[in-house]
Amino acid sequence: METLTENCERIFAEAQKASRQLAQLDNRKIAGTLVAVADALDAGTTKILEANAHDCARMSPQNPKYDRLLLTRERLKAITDDLRRVAALPSPLGKTLAENTRPNGLHIVKISVPVGIIGVIYEARPNVTVDVFSLCFKSGNVCLLKGSHDAEASNVAFVRIIRETLQKEGLDPAVCALLPTEREATVLMLNAVGKVDLAIPRGSRALIDFVRDNARIPVIETGAGVCHLYFDRHGNAAMARELVFNAKTRRVSVCNALDCLIVHKDRLDDLPQICEKLESKNVTIFADGRALPALSGHYPATLLLPATEESFGMEFLDYKMSVRVVDSLEDALEHIARHGSKHSEAIVSDDPAAIEKFQKNVDASCVYANASTAFTDGGQFGFGAEIGISTQKLHARGPMGLDALTTYKYLIFGNGQTRP
Amino acid sequence: METLTENCERIFAEAQKASRQLAQLDNRKIAGTLVAVADALDAGTTKILEANAHDCARMSPQNPKYDRLLLTRERLKAITDDLRRVAALPSPLGKTLAENTRPNGLHIVKISVPVGIIGVIYEARPNVTVDVFSLCFKSGNVCLLKGSHDAEASNVAFVRIIRETLQKEGLDPAVCALLPTEREATVLMLNAVGKVDLAIPRGSRALIDFVRDNARIPVIETGAGVCHLYFDRHGNAAMARELVFNAKTRRVSVCNALDCLIVHKDRLDDLPQICEKLESKNVTIFADGRALPALSGHYPATLLLPATEESFGMEFLDYKMSVRVVDSLEDALEHIARHGSKHSEAIVSDDPAAIEKFQKNVDASCVYANASTAFTDGGQFGFGAEIGISTQKLHARGPMGLDALTTYKYLIFGNGQTRP
Repeated sequence: METLTENCERIFAEAQKASRQLAQLDNRKIAGTLVAVADALDAGTTKILEANAHDCARMSPQNPKYDRLLLTRERLKAITDDLRRVAALPSPLGKTLAENTRPNGLHIVKISVPVGIIGVIYEARPNVTVDVFSLCFKSGNVCLLKGSHDAEASNVAFVRIIRETLQKEGLDPAVCALLPTEREATVLMLNAVGKVDLAIPRGSRALIDFVRDNARIPVIETGAGVCHLYFDRHGNAAMARELVFNAKTRRVSVCNALDCLIVHKDRLDDLPQICEKLESKNVTIFADGRALPALSGHYPATLLLPATEESFGMEFLDYKMSVRVVDSLEDALEHIARHGSKHSEAIVSDDPAAIEKFQKNVDASCVYANASTAFTDGGQFGFGAEIGISTQKLHARGPMGLDALTTYKYLIFGNGQTRP
Repeated sequence: METLTENCERIFAEAQKASRQLAQLDNRKIAGTLVAVADALDAGTTKILEANAHDCARMSPQNPKYDRLLLTRERLKAITDDLRRVAALPSPLGKTLAENTRPNGLHIVKISVPVGIIGVIYEARPNVTVDVFSLCFKSGNVCLLKGSHDAEASNVAFVRIIRETLQKEGLDPAVCALLPTEREATVLMLNAVGKVDLAIPRGSRALIDFVRDNARIPVIETGAGVCHLYFDRHGNAAMARELVFNAKTRRVSVCNALDCLIVHKDRLDDLPQICEKLESKNVTIFADGRALPALSGHYPATLLLPATEESFGMEFLDYKMSVRVVDSLEDALEHIARHGSKHSEAIVSDDPAAIEKFQKNVDASCVYANASTAFTDGGQFGFGAEIGISTQKLHARGPMGLDALTTYKYLIFGNGQTRP
């Protein structure tokens, strides 16, 4: 009987072998295989739903995770539609990124290639299993999937069909592997230096912290966003009202949702108008010492509370928002530098100089002028797909499309050159 | 009295403040400041040499590190020449990397920006202090320098002059800071999540491993290279002789030096010719079961030893090389996949199909056809400067120029867009 360590080591070794085969496939074969997987998942709908029912039976429907775990015919259809869409995207591989001929005649070509083996650690969303496989496979990468115990039967059902299809297509099924659900397995993967090229955690802050703190292999962090909208002295209040409403209430559980409105002191009178639509969604406002009196009498008293120091730098993920009043653009920048998470920040202003200063100064992956932070998303950016939103600066920042799953190598063509 | 932790935390906090100021400077100011630093270092030659003499007095001249520690007037001149060269390079910042207008009118611009705060950990080479400062400053990054105790006085002298010059230029001296020499300080920096953006170790394998194993912040590994040259069935033996000689003996202590020659079995008769020049440098050859008899009688017996399993996958950093005979290109690829370090690999062949297969299959930052692996170097690639050679796949791979010290952000320009 294999121990957990032996099991994982076998998976890593098989992945390395599969990775070399995968790197040789052309985009036609890759796209065709993804479509074949979509067809096989459609044909396997009943089996997948049975497995999912087994997982759901073990969780209380009152559990907030229940809805994420639950699959339906419609949701499965959306999953395989997405798979076909990814199949049809242009390949991110084999692109010439740069090219140059040196004085000695050496010709150097920088081309995009797969990263290799990518481990993705996620929680009880079985759709992520198919999503991650499709993006990794499309970009020539082996994926090692570490789902949660809650979704085990669903994940096993998905991966079984994926691997059967790969095999039918003459490919090594090890390009898609499910790790054992024990947390031990995650730790082994995060320490598989030289065997696993990259780990991507997708899920809660706690999961991301666990991955970063335990990894010796490279990690791309995704997730947390503390987002601000600064209403400048020269801002359009009606526009701010719409942007604040959209960024705060479109989906409160996402990382690009607005957490804090910053208002220039000269425009305090506009604050009631800017906040007026939030009432319809019962948004609780934590207002600072100057914002509170400005809103009193305009915004429902039951939804209006004084801000505390904790109200700032907080990712609410809820119908809650803080409001801070500042004396200047500089103070707004200072507030964002101190409390932001370098994710998405916005300014509403008609003053080009203020916009330029804001965009130049704010250190965040996405810096908006007169638009909602809700656009921070690979699809909205035109990437065709998204593996996540990176909150770090290395390798990939902000919304990550297929390109973020590639690296490069240099091909150097010579005719006998030696270095003096 | 400040504790070590307090001291480091103060340095991190000052660095964050300085980083924001630095990100606002234009290239003219940056270049001018670098030239002013070069001038100040030239003017401070006597002081620097005195400090260096103090360091050198504490080390035995027999110590192999002594030569790296020692500064002379000529070496100082070379250091400030390099500084002026970096000053004159084009800025890697503010480049438009991509641009696109979405159907809803949002205009998205991806521009290059500094990474932020970069910690560099290195050993007893005081020239690295100036080198790292110049590359980080040129790319808008604050550098936290963690040199070794051996070079402490030299590093203090360098950094004092750099900071005095920064101050004279009206800049925050905290853009260049020397960490305390205690190893504790390194550990604190490697765990400064959210405060330090990137750690780059420059030095021995042990140093690199220490950094990777202790870091919770992102790391770019540089260093180790196990490099192969494969002589194909259709290779030119005279060319191979020159390339092997150059790649093996130009400088044995560098990571792009050749470690293993792989020869196709059909060209075993050419092996003596390919190796003949190595004798002049007293290169010891570890030959496998087929190579040994082919070389016997041609290569000096005192320099010819049978290979053991340890002879392969070894970074010699010495006048030593292993030779393996393979039955096919596929076997050569297999050998490289197993024993290579994904650094620099070469094929010598006149067969375009073999070259294409080799370059496509080999997973390494630099894959050469008919050229010496000694070219893996930022200067040789035309980058103008080099911070190191990355041996990982994320963010930067292979020789790293100034671009490798940048990340990007998206500037999004709207006129009130909200997301449906």
